Amino acid sequence: MISEIYDVIVVGAGHAGCEAAAAAANLGSKTLLVTMNMQTIGQMSCNPAMGGIAKGQIVREIDAMGGYSGIVADKSAIQFKMLNLSKGPAMWSPRTQNDRMLFAEEWRLALENTPNLDFFQDMVKSLIVENNKVVGVITSLGIKIKSKSVVLTNGTFLNGLIHVGDKQLGGGRMGEPRAFGITEQLVSLGFEAGRMKTGTPPRVDGRSLDYSKMEEQKGDENPQKFSYLDTPKLNKQLSCQIVYTNETVHDILRSGFDRSPMFNGTIQSTGPRYCPSIEDKINRFAERNRHQLFVEPEGWRTVEIYVNGFSSSLPEDIQIKAMKHIPGFENVKVFRPGYAIEYDYFPPTQLNHTLETKLVENLYFAGQINGTTGYEEAAGQGLIAGINAHNKVHDKGEFILNRDEAYIGVLIDDLITKGTEEPYRMFTSRAEYRLLLRQDNADIRLTEKSYHLGLAKEDRLRKVEEKIAKSEQLEMYLKETSLKPGSINPILESIDSSPVDQAYRAAQILTRPNMTLEKLEAIETIKEITSVYDNEVREQAEINIKYKGYIEKEKENVAKLNRLETIRIPEDFDYTKISSLSTEAKQKMTKIQPKTIAQAGRISGVSPADINVLLVYLGR
Amino acid sequence: MISEIYDVIVVGAGHAGCEAAAAAANLGSKTLLVTMNMQTIGQMSCNPAMGGIAKGQIVREIDAMGGYSGIVADKSAIQFKMLNLSKGPAMWSPRTQNDRMLFAEEWRLALENTPNLDFFQDMVKSLIVENNKVVGVITSLGIKIKSKSVVLTNGTFLNGLIHVGDKQLGGGRMGEPRAFGITEQLVSLGFEAGRMKTGTPPRVDGRSLDYSKMEEQKGDENPQKFSYLDTPKLNKQLSCQIVYTNETVHDILRSGFDRSPMFNGTIQSTGPRYCPSIEDKINRFAERNRHQLFVEPEGWRTVEIYVNGFSSSLPEDIQIKAMKHIPGFENVKVFRPGYAIEYDYFPPTQLNHTLETKLVENLYFAGQINGTTGYEEAAGQGLIAGINAHNKVHDKGEFILNRDEAYIGVLIDDLITKGTEEPYRMFTSRAEYRLLLRQDNADIRLTEKSYHLGLAKEDRLRKVEEKIAKSEQLEMYLKETSLKPGSINPILESIDSSPVDQAYRAAQILTRPNMTLEKLEAIETIKEITSVYDNEVREQAEINIKYKGYIEKEKENVAKLNRLETIRIPEDFDYTKISSLSTEAKQKMTKIQPKTIAQAGRISGVSPADINVLLVYLGR
Repeated sequence: MISEIYDVIVVGAGHAGCEAAAAAANLGSKTLLVTMNMQTIGQMSCNPAMGGIAKGQIVREIDAMGGYSGIVADKSAIQFKMLNLSKGPAMWSPRTQNDRMLFAEEWRLALENTPNLDFFQDMVKSLIVENNKVVGVITSLGIKIKSKSVVLTNGTFLNGLIHVGDKQLGGGRMGEPRAFGITEQLVSLGFEAGRMKTGTPPRVDGRSLDYSKMEEQKGDENPQKFSYLDTPKLNKQLSCQIVYTNETVHDILRSGFDRSPMFNGTIQSTGPRYCPSIEDKINRFAERNRHQLFVEPEGWRTVEIYVNGFSSSLPEDIQIKAMKHIPGFENVKVFRPGYAIEYDYFPPTQLNHTLETKLVENLYFAGQINGTTGYEEAAGQGLIAGINAHNKVHDKGEFILNRDEAYIGVLIDDLITKGTEEPYRMFTSRAEYRLLLRQDNADIRLTEKSYHLGLAKEDRLRKVEEKIAKSEQLEMYLKETSLKPGSINPILESIDSSPVDQAYRAAQILTRPNMTLEKLEAIETIKEITSVYDNEVREQAEINIKYKGYIEKEKENVAKLNRLETIRIPEDFDYTKISSLSTEAKQKMTKIQPKTIAQAGRISGVSPADINVLLVYLGR
Repeated sequence: MISEIYDVIVVGAGHAGCEAAAAAANLGSKTLLVTMNMQTIGQMSCNPAMGGIAKGQIVREIDAMGGYSGIVADKSAIQFKMLNLSKGPAMWSPRTQNDRMLFAEEWRLALENTPNLDFFQDMVKSLIVENNKVVGVITSLGIKIKSKSVVLTNGTFLNGLIHVGDKQLGGGRMGEPRAFGITEQLVSLGFEAGRMKTGTPPRVDGRSLDYSKMEEQKGDENPQKFSYLDTPKLNKQLSCQIVYTNETVHDILRSGFDRSPMFNGTIQSTGPRYCPSIEDKINRFAERNRHQLFVEPEGWRTVEIYVNGFSSSLPEDIQIKAMKHIPGFENVKVFRPGYAIEYDYFPPTQLNHTLETKLVENLYFAGQINGTTGYEEAAGQGLIAGINAHNKVHDKGEFILNRDEAYIGVLIDDLITKGTEEPYRMFTSRAEYRLLLRQDNADIRLTEKSYHLGLAKEDRLRKVEEKIAKSEQLEMYLKETSLKPGSINPILESIDSSPVDQAYRAAQILTRPNMTLEKLEAIETIKEITSVYDNEVREQAEINIKYKGYIEKEKENVAKLNRLETIRIPEDFDYTKISSLSTEAKQKMTKIQPKTIAQAGRISGVSPADINVLLVYLGR
């Protein structure tokens, strides 16, 4: 018997659960993290990497808020790359390869050093719900643990079913038991549940590969990091390798399609569209005669290799046979075959923006249970669920990030407004204000907000304030500094930009395509001043100057749309009584119960005409 | 499909499986290690410690032979103690506290760097047996993997059933699935199977303990290590703490006895007598008003604590309530409750000295499947099973350690000759030649033997040869060096030993009680010579001189008994035809099928009279 009544119980210790527990505990909630196995806290179930396009932005947002994902990723990184550097800064996306074991260890240690956070190893089998309020959990040992709120982050464990060819095994991950009981209870309480599918590629023995036949992919020369705090920078890195499949590989894989649970109807549920299995790629893009694979080390010291891009639930004999025809894989030894897993999720339209469920008070969902895919998406939701669970039980307001404030805001608004029929993955294209939601300014966007919430600490706030002040200083200097044609024209020439015939401000020159602050620093007098600023400040000032026009325009758009965000729709609003609304709009809005006119407008099937009707009805 | 035909497949990657796989692979066998989860290779399922009385000797024996347990323990040690230093050198026993996560990581990395060793993650569900010969395994994915031999090291996973109070959960360890299929198949092949039980204590949050109420137990001031190779020495150590239970704790525990699976008949199988649960201790030693507990850190950085001595399968509410009355545990937070686990084992009288089963050729058993308890006992068996599996498939002879050569020899001879009705644990008292089987001379006893086998490498042999040569040099010096009364009497006085009135050899003086080489070094001329030798050499020479008489006597005993070891009993000998044998002797010997007269004599129920009858019959 555990006598403590917790403020927050978090069920599950993956990316979502870890962030939720850390946030609630750091805010001051008596928090309990319940996990089936304390040895598997912070496991990377799939690829040994964090970040990437749009996902890297989420990690930086979590860090800016005082979450741990960025710190843990930095401490366990074996390689860093800033993706998309050839594109505009809205697309720049940090990504690390990580040491899988070290990542888990760093998460566990970070949590162990979090005050107010307790741990208990057991499987949660059901929730204690009284008067539509959750008040605790019951474990497989029959232990009742009371709490004021519960965050469910069950990942792929709820009725998890693993597929390899025509073999099926119950499990939450390969070699780990599945969880049961929770879905059944929630359905009996009125929740709608569904099934989703995801998959993972084989892991192989690096000693059996011939790297001379592959293309080395090194980390960045000057590796950056996720955290805005002083986490250590990488001073050595491990390389990945790039290889390609070929027609022979495809032919062999195709020969197993009749035994593929994806194709023979065994798996009915939907997998992640943008992280397809290799058989799915071959099937959908039959015209392509090769697919790219990334050969990724699993850590500093292990020989285990993750074959990124080769996710599969084909029979293991087919997986192995096909791999042997990938260049460098001729003698491959497989440690663990790829597999698919089906699991229960709950369509996220059943949630509020706080990630609290609409049906059961003080019950929060985060991560794959909401139909998302990806560590970063899970962690971002965990953070928000943890914050709101804390706030709710301490009678504080809702904490919601808007679509113009954070990718995390886009993610959650998309989920609860539109729902998702397939595992939801973040992309820059999902964020209409992506020019504002950059990886470089997540701290400027979010740290102060989180500081006032009580999560980000003083040191973070000081750091971001200093960054803003220095960046403004530097921008001011560049705006005021006049450059003569004699000093600037050689630089313009070097980038094929037309020469000037009179003096221009440095800031003006900087707005030209292909011009960078670094190039301007060929002028000694500029360099003397600018080089005293550190890279983050220089980057910030440069982006602010170069993209000033776009950014201001974007901010105007936000302001316009935000007017609609401020028009709130009363709770339990009866849409059926407005006869001029389309039937689809009535049904969808009744189901989703949007909080604002803007949210209503984002529901698929709700037309601008419907919005106008609503606006009129609400007296605007 | 895995096309490779392996020489040796090892099933399970605990202490037994890891040593078996390493030994077979290092000897040159194409070896496959199959484990349910590659994340849990080398797990310490119970206490985070290696060695201890008689067990430390086994670790040194494994190391002397070229096994990895000692190296892995050294690399992950957080504390070292040489136990029993106040007793004679036969009792000295090295022990480390270990970082649980690091221990597992070092094991995995050691195995990954072993040539000829492949890995596969899956559960073995059955063996492929043809003509009473094992020729491979079938996994839960239905994968058939062929091999010339199989070593089963299933630990507590075969039909594992976990008990906490009146709750029961299937599992191989808490939070991990159990294995099934193998027992049923072996029984159908004619094997006798049984059930055993073991248990583990709760793990708690170190942050919730008040260490000021406990007694600190530091590591040795000059920590030694297990391996004879140059593994790093500890330069910092973590402390354990000692606390005691009390009557209140006992009363609370007793209040749960009616829900104890140990006492209410739920668990019928036998647990380890010398590692009893706390409820068992209270029950069996009702007169004792306290029991000692060791509060052991689980690693360098984690706050998790192992409560050694408090193993329990009482309901978790009772465990927690009782713990709160242990001094310093008033506010204890529990991470994982203690539990008991029942599992299948196979009475080891069904094995040969090589650990090959008598019923199925090329099938070997090692570890808990043979009814033993303890990491070291498991590892020692794994080593021998791995060696013999390799030798058999390469048409090499049996590799057997005799009772006068190694604790491992005593262990296996006890198991296969006497069987065991309860989890078998090694003690110095089980070894009749324990004065010969010391931790300090395991290398001298075993390294050359293992070198000729092909397992210990050149560097080990060189090291032990050098140790022997230098020790002999030093002994010679001490035997030849004469000490005058004037220089030796002050030292004798200091240890209350009667003074001498004429010159004596240093070696003679050294044989006196309480006299040590270190004390003799008060004499400058002695120290000048002896201090150039390193500690291992000095220890060896000192023991050889001080215990010369005892050691020689022991060796004579060995020689005498070894005559009986050389008298072999023909295979399939028909005991029933010797009418003058006792009925019990006939039955037991028919079952055990002893290989030698000496082994026959160690079978319980076989009397010296029976042995004489046998000797006469065999023509001696």
